[in-house]
Amino acid sequence: MGLFTKDIKTMNELFVHQLQDIYYAEQQLVKALQTMAGKATDKQLKEGFLSHLDETRTHVQRLEQVFQMCGLKVKAVDCPAIDGIIEEADEVAGEVADKAVLDAALINAGQAAEHYEIARYGTLITWARQLGRTDIASILQKTLDEEKTADKKLTSLAEGKINLRAAS
Amino acid sequence: MGLFTKDIKTMNELFVHQLQDIYYAEQQLVKALQTMAGKATDKQLKEGFLSHLDETRTHVQRLEQVFQMCGLKVKAVDCPAIDGIIEEADEVAGEVADKAVLDAALINAGQAAEHYEIARYGTLITWARQLGRTDIASILQKTLDEEKTADKKLTSLAEGKINLRAAS
Repeated sequence: MGLFTKDIKTMNELFVHQLQDIYYAEQQLVKALQTMAGKATDKQLKEGFLSHLDETRTHVQRLEQVFQMCGLKVKAVDCPAIDGIIEEADEVAGEVADKAVLDAALINAGQAAEHYEIARYGTLITWARQLGRTDIASILQKTLDEEKTADKKLTSLAEGKINLRAAS
Repeated sequence: MGLFTKDIKTMNELFVHQLQDIYYAEQQLVKALQTMAGKATDKQLKEGFLSHLDETRTHVQRLEQVFQMCGLKVKAVDCPAIDGIIEEADEVAGEVADKAVLDAALINAGQAAEHYEIARYGTLITWARQLGRTDIASILQKTLDEEKTADKKLTSLAEGKINLRAAS
């Protein structure tokens, strides 16, 4: 997108911009999930991050498939939102001294990232349907379902174990 | 929080840090919602942003009440996540030429902010309960419910009108 120009004139162009944004975000999350898995001390949490890392790699591939279905070259645009979410996760994790409390902080960071993706994929699916591309909406729906499941898994891990240990 | 020091040693301290973070975020959203209401062209969307602006001012007050209930001074810490979400909203809005498409972009931006808050309040409520502060959890739950309602209203406005107009 050009500086000081208004490059988005149609819903189709807005959709493509958001696609490039989430493509960047998923790539950053591949790196961030590796870091978070490395920091997690609870075995189940570490495995959870690694399992979602695998899913996230699939999400990147699905987005590449969507670019292809749109007849577009794969492209990422900077996404200050995910950069901010990851920066905040790193900052807080760096300030936590206790291992169990760090795990609770990592879950919180992971859920912020999940919710960012849930918002963006929700919008992309609505826009794809509106633009008559139910084929693309179906592919993105698979990813949205996985993000929602990942978020729920983090909640039950937090409530069932991590927070109890951290508060003890 | 001190630079290069590990200041968070307990769940209580992690809770307070997250409280200071969301306090900053809500204050930034008061400003951002004013900007978004100013940019929105659809009357119903403009009114929606203004009505959520009123709610957001109440969310700020509720957080001040929670600080008081914890026996703490009100304090905000930088929240790079919300800064990134707002920066991205401004960037995209600046690139959209068509008014109806701009409204669709504004809804997308609003929903990213709502989901950030939903994630953070969800965690704060869980932590407050874990720390035995169900009184604080109840107050934060009111805000969480309003954030979820605001998100749903934006979805139905998008699907019922704004996207149809933008894609036509």
